[in-house]
This record gives sequence, structure tokens and C-alpha cells, in this order.
Amino acid sequence: MITLYTDSSPNGFKITIALEELGLAYTLRHVKIAEGENRRPDFLHLNPHGRIPVLVDDSSGITLFESAAILLYLADKTGRLLPSVPTMRWEAIQWLMFNAASVGPIIGQRVHFELFAAARNPEAIAHYRRLVNEAFATLDRRLAAHPYLAGEAYSIADIAQFGWTHIARIIGFDFSVHKHMSAWHERVAARPAVQRGIALPAPATEA
Amino acid sequence: MITLYTDSSPNGFKITIALEELGLAYTLRHVKIAEGENRRPDFLHLNPHGRIPVLVDDSSGITLFESAAILLYLADKTGRLLPSVPTMRWEAIQWLMFNAASVGPIIGQRVHFELFAAARNPEAIAHYRRLVNEAFATLDRRLAAHPYLAGEAYSIADIAQFGWTHIARIIGFDFSVHKHMSAWHERVAARPAVQRGIALPAPATEA
Ligand SMILES: N[C@@H](CCC(=O)N[C@@H](CS)C(=O)NCC(=O)O)C(=O)O
Ligand SMILES: N[C@@H](CCC(=O)N[C@@H](CS)C(=O)NCC(=O)O)C(=O)O
Repeated sequence: MITLYTDSSPNGFKITIALEELGLAYTLRHVKIAEGENRRPDFLHLNPHGRIPVLVDDSSGITLFESAAILLYLADKTGRLLPSVPTMRWEAIQWLMFNAASVGPIIGQRVHFELFAAARNPEAIAHYRRLVNEAFATLDRRLAAHPYLAGEAYSIADIAQFGWTHIARIIGFDFSVHKHMSAWHERVAARPAVQRGIALPAPATEA
Repeated sequence: MITLYTDSSPNGFKITIALEELGLAYTLRHVKIAEGENRRPDFLHLNPHGRIPVLVDDSSGITLFESAAILLYLADKTGRLLPSVPTMRWEAIQWLMFNAASVGPIIGQRVHFELFAAARNPEAIAHYRRLVNEAFATLDRRLAAHPYLAGEAYSIADIAQFGWTHIARIIGFDFSVHKHMSAWHERVAARPAVQRGIALPAPATEA
């Protein structure tokens, strides 16, 4: 049995979307970040860094944190959502890593300074707007030439990226200037598993 | 034949260290970031996001950017530096992803605000010092219980993390309070392949 510890947030939605797409049975455990549940001892036992998502798979005895690791694990477990031809497979892994290391953390910093920082910090806001825009421009060029990040096939790279563009939309980080990325976003959003995934454990709000 | 496009920087050293450890033959191409060579059209053709490292493997026809993707590729190509037993393998991948998504980008932001930002920004500096310290504390707890990040065996997770602690040392981000991480750093630094890797394409300086 798979158990997913998550909240309604970008890195969490990556995994609910993937599990829904794969049709795997799982139990959902809502870890409420706003209530500090991710810093409680029982949760720190699962992820010592105190972040969601965490996946526990009883069938293999594996407990994993870091959303990109969980996506790779689910693809490996099922043989789906990651191409098997090596050139395509590594392209998908490259774009998954681009999301994990070069896009997600940068949007996360922008969210901090635009939505959560105690005092307004115009310099930091401008810095992260520029970096987010640069990352989106890179994704847009890729998606001008291919329907999905890995090329022809929908993969965990798209799911990871969608977790973030979904939140960007909700909090008003407009990316409509990036036409190909916007069209890709609609294409991914239209998938029934995506619609189910972004409502688990609950739809995200603006805050 | 493998060609590595790199500069003397944390994400670059990850790959020179791995290639040296694996004893693979490769050609080094020095892309000088300080001279803007990473933004020239011929380089953007390899990585549209204009960042090093990039690895080109003629034998498989694969071109890859994102250091974590390259490390996974080299481990897959050689069957080394990543355990094959699933529980250990996923532990290694989890810590590799922790470096890629939760440690590297955060140290990178701290570097920006402490060393490169045009104006002093005490609030942003304090914010990133706190986050770096939190990440180092998580690594320290892990390394209190295990000699290497994946457990008993040295892996690409250690190589990725060392790329960053090496630079942290050079630029004076002191982590001596994290005793287990410091001891691990010395253990990794003592490896001949690490000593060769951090000198390629040239040793890093303080700037
Ligand atoms: N790189 C990690 C990031 C995880 C992360 O930052 N999760 C957020 C929610 S999207 C969280 O748990 N935040 C709680 C906190 O920072 O206290 C991943 O991809 O899983
Ligand atoms: N997530 C990427 C980050 C790559 C990266 O930021 N590389 C730096 C050097 S360590 C770079 O090329 N910087 C040049 C620039 O930002 O213009 C990776 O792990 O490869």
C-alpha cells in the first residue's frame, strides 16, 4: 500500500497528479503546513527536513521525500510516464531536473518575497521576477518545438512543471506572454488525472 | 567520446569529480562564465538556459544539461556510484535530489546576496543564512548516523553535495558547527579523484 503525506502546494500536486494518472491505489495523509504539522516529530521521522511530499510504499519498504525522487520512483515502479528509449528518457530526466533545480526553487523564492516576507523588498522581488521570467522563456522555447517537455510524450517532467504553473496562475504570476508554455499548460490542465490531482488533499487557495 | 563543457564552480565540479572517480576518458571545454561564454549562441545550442555543466556523449548521442541529470546518466552508463539494491538506490537518489532542489539553489541565493548583489540587502542575507543553516543541519543529522549520504557507500549524492561544501569553504560560509558534515567533507576531500576534479578546468577562487 502507498501512503502519500502532502498538502495543497506545488510540490505536493506533482505527486497527487502522478498517482491519479497512474491509477495507483494510495492513502492520502493531509499534513497541514499552515498548522505546523510538517514540523512535528512524527513527520520529521519521515522527512528530517520537514517538507512535503513524502511517499511510503509498503510493498517495497521504501520511504521517499523530494518530489523529483518520488516521480522517478513512481515511473520506475510502473514503467510509465518516462520514455524507455535512452535519448528520449534522458531528455525527460533533464527537464525533470530543470524543474526541480532551476525552476521550482526560483519560483519558490519569488513567492516568498512577493507573498510572505515581513517587509517589502523591491530589489529581491525584481531579482526573482527576472529569474522566473528567464526560466519560463527557456521552457517556452522548448515547448515551441515540442508538445511536451520530453518531446512527443507526456511525462513526469510535465507533471513536475505543471505543479508550479498551476500555482503561478492561482497567485497571479502571469505567464501569458509565454505563448507556447501557456498552450502547454492548457493541454496538461485538460487531463482528467490533473484535474483530480490538483484538488487533493484540497484545492489551493491564493494565500 | 565524452565532452564536458564546464567552469570552476559548484555544479561544474560535481561532474569533473564524477568523471575522475569513474576514470572515464573525456575532453574538457572551459566555458568562461565571467567572460559571458555561456550566453554565446553555440553554447545556448547545447543548453538553452545558458548554464554549465553540459555533457555530450558521442557514443550514445546524448547531450545533457542539469548536473543531477548528468550524475544519474554517468552512474547509469557505468553501473557505479549508485547502489543497485532498491532501498539503498532510492535513498541515494533522494539525497541527490535534496542537493539539487533543496540545498544547491538555496546556497546559490545566499551567494548572490552576500557576494554579487549590487546593494546590501540584510533581510535577504539573513533569510538565506537561515535556510542554508537549516539544510546543513538536516545533512549533519544524516551524516551523524551514516558515513555517506546514501548510507555505507560513497555515491553521486556525496559528489553533488561536495561540489557545494567545497565552494562554501572557499567563500567563507563556515559550517564547522555541523561536526558530522565537516568530518564527511574531509573524508570526501581526501579522495584523489576529488582533488583532481576540483582543479578542473581550474581551481575556484574567492570571487
Ligand atoms: N525540493 C522539495 C521541496 C519541498 C517543499 O519545499 N515543500 C513545501 C510545500 S510545496 C513545504 O513542505 N514547505 C513547508 C515549509 O517550508 O515549512 C521537493 O521538491 O519535494
Ligand atoms: N541546476 C543547474 C544549475 C546550473 C548553474 O546555475 N550553473 C552555474 C555555474 S555553477 C552557471 O552556469 N551560471 C551562469 C549564469 O547564471 O549565467 C545544475 O545543477 O546544473
